[in-house]
Amino acid sequence: MIERIADQIIALERAALDRWGKGDPDGFLEITDPDIVYYDPFQPQGIHGREALAALYDTFRGQVSIERDEILSPRVQVSGDIAVLTFNYVSYGSEGSMRWNTTEVYRRRGDTWRIIHTHWSKAASRGEGRRA
Amino acid sequence: MIERIADQIIALERAALDRWGKGDPDGFLEITDPDIVYYDPFQPQGIHGREALAALYDTFRGQVSIERDEILSPRVQVSGDIAVLTFNYVSYGSEGSMRWNTTEVYRRRGDTWRIIHTHWSKAASRGEGRRA
Repeated sequence: MIERIADQIIALERAALDRWGKGDPDGFLEITDPDIVYYDPFQPQGIHGREALAALYDTFRGQVSIERDEILSPRVQVSGDIAVLTFNYVSYGSEGSMRWNTTEVYRRRGDTWRIIHTHWSKAASRGEGRRA
Repeated sequence: MIERIADQIIALERAALDRWGKGDPDGFLEITDPDIVYYDPFQPQGIHGREALAALYDTFRGQVSIERDEILSPRVQVSGDIAVLTFNYVSYGSEGSMRWNTTEVYRRRGDTWRIIHTHWSKAASRGEGRRA
């Protein structure tokens, strides 16, 4: 059951990323909960709510072109109606090669999973460091 | 009820951060689930499991000194036995001033909340950008 949910969540994310990589942010917006909290490295306060996120995503429409990408080491932690998907994401495209740490928290309502929290951040390619 | 949980989660995080800022990582380890997935900007693959995280945190023991910090705009999304805490964190101390985006996913078992996912990343101080 949990494995089936994990497969389902990864497939949702994969499909949304496929559209994202062709400049179409609607794949993500269609599976985004109105209540989303969104973090990426460029938004000082994060983005709160789907309407605000849609306004941000509109600025990317037709701008992104990912030639090749990969979801690495995906992990899905399921508890009740929440699934926490984490993965490393590598993409090659319009912005060169990027490596990300990604968190996507999905919540189920009825039979439908929606993202209530997204956190993208730039990942180390190698090396060590520390948090202070 | 949800507000009570939110207060409880923020208090757990605040207490762990207080100990962290004095060089004591055990505050976090004591509320970390064995199943944790941990991301920060310095771990290329993330850290999987409390044992591996404890090994990382041991290298920080006595090394961190935070003089002043602040949890900004905390938000707690509660669903069943999961609470997703997100906040901006600003600290001033041994490493200078840092600004972070932070995700902490807590899971309740019985009366006890434990962190099953942590994602720290460097936040923009200002300016705009885009995700590719």
